Amino acid sequence: MTRLTIRLDFDNGTALGPGKVRLLEFIAETGSIRKAAAQMKMSYRRAWMLLQALDDGFGHPLVATSRGGSKGGGARLTELGEQVVYRYRRLEQAASEAGKADAEALGQHTARETGKRPQARQIRRITK
Amino acid sequence: MTRLTIRLDFDNGTALGPGKVRLLEFIAETGSIRKAAAQMKMSYRRAWMLLQALDDGFGHPLVATSRGGSKGGGARLTELGEQVVYRYRRLEQAASEAGKADAEALGQHTARETGKRPQARQIRRITK
Repeated sequence: MTRLTIRLDFDNGTALGPGKVRLLEFIAETGSIRKAAAQMKMSYRRAWMLLQALDDGFGHPLVATSRGGSKGGGARLTELGEQVVYRYRRLEQAASEAGKADAEALGQHTARETGKRPQARQIRRITK
Repeated sequence: MTRLTIRLDFDNGTALGPGKVRLLEFIAETGSIRKAAAQMKMSYRRAWMLLQALDDGFGHPLVATSRGGSKGGGARLTELGEQVVYRYRRLEQAASEAGKADAEALGQHTARETGKRPQARQIRRITK
């Protein structure tokens, strides 16, 4: 099954793709930036920088954090963060459906295994 | 205007995204791998490796090359290469249209300029 991934580039230079969205989803799931970063096998620092880039790009926080308290703090998506995830996933779904026929046709052209090289590039030449 | 970019990952591990497709288009335009690489500000070596990855992934060449002759050789897309570009661009178009409303809604959330930080992350805290 061919997998389609979307990247959005906004006018202000902000980019939104699968990495940032997955990070937001893991934060929603785990309630923790640190745990979400671990799930994505990225450093806490990198996760924090991605969130900062999102906040900068959208002008408001997508994640709200708390410190201390009985549970030792945590993180959750703001309403904006939820909106961003929801719209991105819905867009991805619509795009996948719209492009399904071409994606499958391209997938059928692909070799069953990579690494096989049925024809070396050098052999196929235009003879004038 | 929010720009949408597609990446396809096929079952055999091959990926197809804007970089490889743009390279193929430049080869079709310029008739030369070297010129196409220059247009993309990438090394000839890198362009060659991307083409090799495509050939491996699709099992057949996407670009045919000739050497020597009165014009000093050249490159052109094979029928498969043309198919891949055509289907990718059509898919991208269909996906953009299908996701237009969400892409625009997300774009309207983005700040007009990045680098402004209307609210620092640290200020917005959940008060328990």
